[in-house]
Amino acid sequence: MADDAGLQLYGFWRSMAAYRVRVALNLKGLKASEIALNLDAGEQFAPEYLALNPEGAVPALVEPGHPPITQSMAILEYLEEAYPQAPLLPADPHGRARVRSLAAVIVSDTHPLMVPRVRAYLNEHAGFDEAALRDWSIHWGVRGLAVIEARLARDAATGVYCHGDQVTFADICLTNLGMAMRAAKIDMSAYPTVARIIAACEQLEAFQRANPRLQLGAP
Amino acid sequence: MADDAGLQLYGFWRSMAAYRVRVALNLKGLKASEIALNLDAGEQFAPEYLALNPEGAVPALVEPGHPPITQSMAILEYLEEAYPQAPLLPADPHGRARVRSLAAVIVSDTHPLMVPRVRAYLNEHAGFDEAALRDWSIHWGVRGLAVIEARLARDAATGVYCHGDQVTFADICLTNLGMAMRAAKIDMSAYPTVARIIAACEQLEAFQRANPRLQLGAP
Repeated sequence: MADDAGLQLYGFWRSMAAYRVRVALNLKGLKASEIALNLDAGEQFAPEYLALNPEGAVPALVEPGHPPITQSMAILEYLEEAYPQAPLLPADPHGRARVRSLAAVIVSDTHPLMVPRVRAYLNEHAGFDEAALRDWSIHWGVRGLAVIEARLARDAATGVYCHGDQVTFADICLTNLGMAMRAAKIDMSAYPTVARIIAACEQLEAFQRANPRLQLGAP
Repeated sequence: MADDAGLQLYGFWRSMAAYRVRVALNLKGLKASEIALNLDAGEQFAPEYLALNPEGAVPALVEPGHPPITQSMAILEYLEEAYPQAPLLPADPHGRARVRSLAAVIVSDTHPLMVPRVRAYLNEHAGFDEAALRDWSIHWGVRGLAVIEARLARDAATGVYCHGDQVTFADICLTNLGMAMRAAKIDMSAYPTVARIIAACEQLEAFQRANPRLQLGAP
């Protein structure tokens, strides 16, 4: 275990974005003490937390003596720069661009549509019931899986993982989406490359230890 | 003008994500020939374009001899690495994290809710009419502005621009959101720091030349 520099992670067991940070910390051999906010109880809007992150969202990573870092991908990029061991991006700029682009399909185009505040809006302003919310989340999740599958399946740069044989940001984000879609009972066999890569990631202890069900506050 | 390395940008005049890339190219003194896809006519789903980007979305940046790069922030990170002149990220890891986090509030938490495919779903599956779609977009846009204002206004790291006195990814994304919100007739005076920074950016030729109204295909 590398020196943990006293890192603190504000998270929530079910948060997909907090999961990404946990996996990255694990892969880099970093330890952070996790402070669990109960998002279901609105603890992210408590004044003390808003003082730390005015967005009222997790994750936030705090390193003593520095301002908190928010937004999962900003945290991953920070960890990559500050703790270069076990790199999570390839070395060449075109490879890095490919990895960041794959990650962005999930982190920008897919996951933000599924978060609690969006579901709450659709419920309150458009009368979406549980079934309509499920259809909504699955629509975007399946679109994300299909885009990633189409990109990975035909590209020689795909290896054991999304980019060659080294775990990158893209695998962290993809495994994250895969977990959500499996929980929604989506048949992953339509996305064979995606399913193969997620299975490979789930063999790794860094992913296993980040599993939402094992986190503080999980039922 | 720096050597343009034969860059080609697939864009659309109204695309917020293509705008980001245009500004970054301009700030770095790079020239890309733009290929305009008419997203209103579905040209992003033409087989030739899907072969280039299976997601069927703009922007895509093509550098001869390399695979296309998609996703606006992956393109900006690539440009920053491959063309380090006129840096768009600060040098220190904590500053870089702050800039990336501010950008992500817009690029992950705000803009993806406003894109045509999401509006189409809400129209087709939830009966959102033009007024409901407007309310939806404004709800998320205003939330984004409020979050950014809260973060910038109280932080000594804020300067002429979002991070000190150098234009960064955060300013590019913020100006982008500000344009969309002004077009929706939102009163920006509730966000004085945001409004001041956008006004400063709009003084710069790199931002002026990227204006959607000046692009190929604009009405």
